[in-house]
Amino acid sequence: MTPSETALKQLYEDFAEAGLLPLWTQREDLMPMTPQPAAHAHVWHWRDLYPIAQRAGELVPVGRGGERRAIALANPGLPGEPYATPTLWAAVQYLGPREVAPSHRHSQGAFRFVLEGEGVWTVVDGDPVAMRRGDLLLTPGWAFHEHHNPTDRPMAWLDGLDIPLVSGLDAGFFEFGPDRLADSSTPDRSRAERLWAHPGLRPLSGVGAPAANSPLAAYRWQHTDAALSAQLELESEGHPGTAGEGHAAVRFTNPTSGGDALATLRTEMHRLRAGSALPVTRVVGSAVWQVFSGTGTVRIGDRTVRLATGDLVAVPSWQPFSVEADTDLDLFTFSDAPVYEALNLYRTKIGADAS
Amino acid sequence: MTPSETALKQLYEDFAEAGLLPLWTQREDLMPMTPQPAAHAHVWHWRDLYPIAQRAGELVPVGRGGERRAIALANPGLPGEPYATPTLWAAVQYLGPREVAPSHRHSQGAFRFVLEGEGVWTVVDGDPVAMRRGDLLLTPGWAFHEHHNPTDRPMAWLDGLDIPLVSGLDAGFFEFGPDRLADSSTPDRSRAERLWAHPGLRPLSGVGAPAANSPLAAYRWQHTDAALSAQLELESEGHPGTAGEGHAAVRFTNPTSGGDALATLRTEMHRLRAGSALPVTRVVGSAVWQVFSGTGTVRIGDRTVRLATGDLVAVPSWQPFSVEADTDLDLFTFSDAPVYEALNLYRTKIGADAS
Amino acid sequence: MTPSETALKQLYEDFAEAGLLPLWTQREDLMPMTPQPAAHAHVWHWRDLYPIAQRAGELVPVGRGGERRAIALANPGLPGEPYATPTLWAAVQYLGPREVAPSHRHSQGAFRFVLEGEGVWTVVDGDPVAMRRGDLLLTPGWAFHEHHNPTDRPMAWLDGLDIPLVSGLDAGFFEFGPDRLADSSTPDRSRAERLWAHPGLRPLSGVGAPAANSPLAAYRWQHTDAALSAQLELESEGHPGTAGEGHAAVRFTNPTSGGDALATLRTEMHRLRAGSALPVTRVVGSAVWQVFSGTGTVRIGDRTVRLATGDLVAVPSWQPFSVEADTDLDLFTFSDAPVYEALNLYRTKIGADAS
Amino acid sequence: MTPSETALKQLYEDFAEAGLLPLWTQREDLMPMTPQPAAHAHVWHWRDLYPIAQRAGELVPVGRGGERRAIALANPGLPGEPYATPTLWAAVQYLGPREVAPSHRHSQGAFRFVLEGEGVWTVVDGDPVAMRRGDLLLTPGWAFHEHHNPTDRPMAWLDGLDIPLVSGLDAGFFEFGPDRLADSSTPDRSRAERLWAHPGLRPLSGVGAPAANSPLAAYRWQHTDAALSAQLELESEGHPGTAGEGHAAVRFTNPTSGGDALATLRTEMHRLRAGSALPVTRVVGSAVWQVFSGTGTVRIGDRTVRLATGDLVAVPSWQPFSVEADTDLDLFTFSDAPVYEALNLYRTKIGADAS
Repeated sequence: MTPSETALKQLYEDFAEAGLLPLWTQREDLMPMTPQPAAHAHVWHWRDLYPIAQRAGELVPVGRGGERRAIALANPGLPGEPYATPTLWAAVQYLGPREVAPSHRHSQGAFRFVLEGEGVWTVVDGDPVAMRRGDLLLTPGWAFHEHHNPTDRPMAWLDGLDIPLVSGLDAGFFEFGPDRLADSSTPDRSRAERLWAHPGLRPLSGVGAPAANSPLAAYRWQHTDAALSAQLELESEGHPGTAGEGHAAVRFTNPTSGGDALATLRTEMHRLRAGSALPVTRVVGSAVWQVFSGTGTVRIGDRTVRLATGDLVAVPSWQPFSVEADTDLDLFTFSDAPVYEALNLYRTKIGADAS
Repeated sequence: MTPSETALKQLYEDFAEAGLLPLWTQREDLMPMTPQPAAHAHVWHWRDLYPIAQRAGELVPVGRGGERRAIALANPGLPGEPYATPTLWAAVQYLGPREVAPSHRHSQGAFRFVLEGEGVWTVVDGDPVAMRRGDLLLTPGWAFHEHHNPTDRPMAWLDGLDIPLVSGLDAGFFEFGPDRLADSSTPDRSRAERLWAHPGLRPLSGVGAPAANSPLAAYRWQHTDAALSAQLELESEGHPGTAGEGHAAVRFTNPTSGGDALATLRTEMHRLRAGSALPVTRVVGSAVWQVFSGTGTVRIGDRTVRLATGDLVAVPSWQPFSVEADTDLDLFTFSDAPVYEALNLYRTKIGADAS
Repeated sequence: MTPSETALKQLYEDFAEAGLLPLWTQREDLMPMTPQPAAHAHVWHWRDLYPIAQRAGELVPVGRGGERRAIALANPGLPGEPYATPTLWAAVQYLGPREVAPSHRHSQGAFRFVLEGEGVWTVVDGDPVAMRRGDLLLTPGWAFHEHHNPTDRPMAWLDGLDIPLVSGLDAGFFEFGPDRLADSSTPDRSRAERLWAHPGLRPLSGVGAPAANSPLAAYRWQHTDAALSAQLELESEGHPGTAGEGHAAVRFTNPTSGGDALATLRTEMHRLRAGSALPVTRVVGSAVWQVFSGTGTVRIGDRTVRLATGDLVAVPSWQPFSVEADTDLDLFTFSDAPVYEALNLYRTKIGADAS
Repeated sequence: MTPSETALKQLYEDFAEAGLLPLWTQREDLMPMTPQPAAHAHVWHWRDLYPIAQRAGELVPVGRGGERRAIALANPGLPGEPYATPTLWAAVQYLGPREVAPSHRHSQGAFRFVLEGEGVWTVVDGDPVAMRRGDLLLTPGWAFHEHHNPTDRPMAWLDGLDIPLVSGLDAGFFEFGPDRLADSSTPDRSRAERLWAHPGLRPLSGVGAPAANSPLAAYRWQHTDAALSAQLELESEGHPGTAGEGHAAVRFTNPTSGGDALATLRTEMHRLRAGSALPVTRVVGSAVWQVFSGTGTVRIGDRTVRLATGDLVAVPSWQPFSVEADTDLDLFTFSDAPVYEALNLYRTKIGADAS
């Protein structure tokens, strides 16, 4: 070892001793030319997920402590973490006949999306919200919520949360609610919907500055389906309205602001005519897509996977992503896009540029 | 005349000569302790208005030049001006069988509110919008619009605009459109509604920054009625939601922002249970109210007037205003409140303070 | 008279009787093709104004009732009204040695701009603000304010307010303050400046949502002059920064929002190199310009007027306006532009299009 | 093993096989009752840092690849990561006589804060910005920047970036700039300052919608010091203005919005009178503090450490933090607070509640 090598070795040891790390040995890892996500593009098939959820329903109780019988998608690029992507948590939650998932609240924002079945009510801050096929339900950060199944049939659905984001930000608070159901009634429509689910109408009792999260507890499939159908019909009639050719899409929004329904999560439903496609797109930030109905083919980077109803796809940051529809294809998606927009970190490329 | 009186007289003459006016002789008029509107509180009864509109339908043609068979409420405190208040224009517009009110556009924002009847389509930027009882239709500033009546029956409705405001601000632009109807079809729902009238759902083709005016061309009575009913039902069940006791109310809003449907005009529908009341309120800025159904009594300042369906009330700035409902009572109202909120000039007093 | 003429005559009489006015006879006046301001383009020369103000100083006392010895520019197109334009009030205020203009507050927003002289303090909500040549001082709506001259010399300045706007909107409130000066001290800098006049620095005690009006009570000539000089120097060095060739300009802004210093009034200072020009511009809304130093020529519509220091120009809505600088020319201007921007009524044309 | 134990074991194996992880075994880790940061409260002493930086200056070249001779604070709770906290990167950067740190740009937002010394210019998008004691310099995300030292003396400063945040979000882009200095001149003030460093004055060429990051490249110590002094003087005179008793503070803001100078980083300077204190505070999100001058004592959770000039403190999320000033004490701090505010995740407790 030359004297200068010795000095350098000593310097690095002294860095470590002093609680320091030099930039120049790690610059490329810390500041890559483009995002280098550890998360992988990955597909989970519903034919695998649902039977496992059923078995969990038989073997694992639901209740205080675990709180929820929720089985999270664990991205293979993030070993040991129950995270679909670095910011998004996605899980199948399963509630058996007569079961109750007890009341709690947390900083993390959450939604439920119902692939199939019905019969569970989510009680959000005391307001019972029915869950049915195709519905999107919100439980914004710090709202008390509990689920109960007053029927004789089990029910499963998709839970989406910003758990990894909030965890990475050390921003999580959690509180247990009362052990007894706040309201065990099973109304067809929640009170939130009765107040807010009227297009363009804002209750005078609810006017004021924009709220961070939507006050509308549920977005019903009947409305979503009608909105998507209308876009494709307009296209057939020669009018604008679709997001692209053969591609209808709606964003679930907060009626007090016109922005995303949840402060940290974007939620959308897309419909492709058979033979149509989502064009290749790269987005900074990650997303999860779920097939609501139909079949198609997804491409992410080099991977190509056939998709059927219920299949879930994790799309890491800046990976080229596209979908082709074999049949008419309905896709639900959620992402962390509001985070990037709020922090001036959003970028996207669409079409030839993105490939 | 003393020398100083002479000097003063000369000073005032020189003021006039130089194009000047001293503040001290007019201070109280220019800057009153509280608003001293020239406009009067005034009521126009539908039983008077509608027959006159019918006669105008027989005697006055509609077409280029006059553009519209619209008969404006002329506030007796603003003689010679066809203004309901210093900022608001309100008129009964009447369109006979097979008539067309030709296409034009203007800076002034406008809406139509339908008290009774149906059978006219308003074509807004080429999109035909059916008009039916209880509907609110928008024609935002600078949108081309025309009305046509393809039926055998006449139809009348309320027009509301910000003509006096825009006139006072010297901000008016006007353009004639084509003489031929852009689209003579008579669809049940406009394309704008097909895209936007889904609660909380925003077409992906329409996401972006908030628009100044709502893209939703029509707010249908079916939705407004349902929203008001739901609030009163919630109240009956012991839940919050009404604006006051026995008082349901919705504001017509812009789904891209959650704010008022039009940049300069606030529009709302109120429902009072029989025996309930709008509490005494003073607001800076003026409003027009129209009884949609039912009977009641309005008090403005010292005046008390019985109201029936179709009656119109002008409420000048800062006048104590209240309404008592004899029967169940539905009231439409529009005002200039967004102007005052945007300019930091809004004030209000409610209840005992306002009397 | 034919029967139909008789019927029509009767109809118009019945309109009047019922408090109605038809649109079709007035459409063009109510909704012109482009703004048709009643206000005229007009110039008031300082050589006329100042001597009259001096004479008023000798002949007219200042005090309660009249409140201010302010002599307003009265636009010849708005006879009887002390209004420079339909929205703007501009006056020369004159305060003699040892005089006090007593404390009051009002909804109307106000500023003072100092053409020459010094020695008066404006006390805004108890904070004494020195007035000196080239300074812009704010007294936002509803702030108590009073002026006192502790010196042996008189002082005059330009007052700008939104009196006509607030009057047209029936939004004015007024309150007398205490008869005794809140603070008779004569500090070099106000407390507001000591807290806020540091570039880009916001006191932690003053962070929060944007305020409607700027908390910075005074914008000093030393800073304005330096900012304008810097822009022209940058241009000379080949760098961007000027508003146009040979044209430096700054807007007085609210450090809590970056927007206009006052909610209803835009205030700016422009500097033209000798031989440079403000290009022909049309703007919806009106403005007042004052020459701060130098000479030039203004063109508004067909009028051309030579300008010297202190001269004031009223520019009505949508009139083509340009200025050519004979010498280096500093121009102060205020306008109602924030009103039009807030209400989605703003339009402008610059250059060849505007002529 | 009972049959049900076997079934459960099999279930967990099948979870793993299917790429799933159950919530119920990890709920408390994923969603703690309050933030449980892995990062530690930690203090780095300048007496240790600066000599190491000097030795690095002798032993390690600066240039392409490593890009910067920056030595990062590595939080002992985040082993192997050069991160001061989970979102914040803080480093001492050292540039020897005549050295150049080459041009590049990246998504990550950055600032420089100068503890001592001078003689380096940072060239931001071609605009040379002098660095001197007490100055804060910005290099917002995606701005090209390079540093050069045209003097014979070395210089060191603090770099702050959002590298960990951007890395966790997979949002990093990086580009090398030209190898030659864009501008080797050494002006006293940058062009950005000449345009923007005038209190409340916005260049007309720079008006428009708020920018995500401040256009003001440097906040000079002369202004910061004056602002802090003024607050304490106002307090001494009995006027409001300080953040607390004996505690002056300013936030570095974006003059186009009044918000934080950088989209993801809050930057502030605090001044405590000898004997005064920052009250105990808990904040969601993390911060780094650096003593600019003076001595004091910091308490974070159970730890108490004496601080002297240049010492750096990492404060993890929700840890009780307070400082007592032995002498007059100036403290610079930066944090990720804008992130939490934008995402509706911000919470704080001050005083007794926070202990």
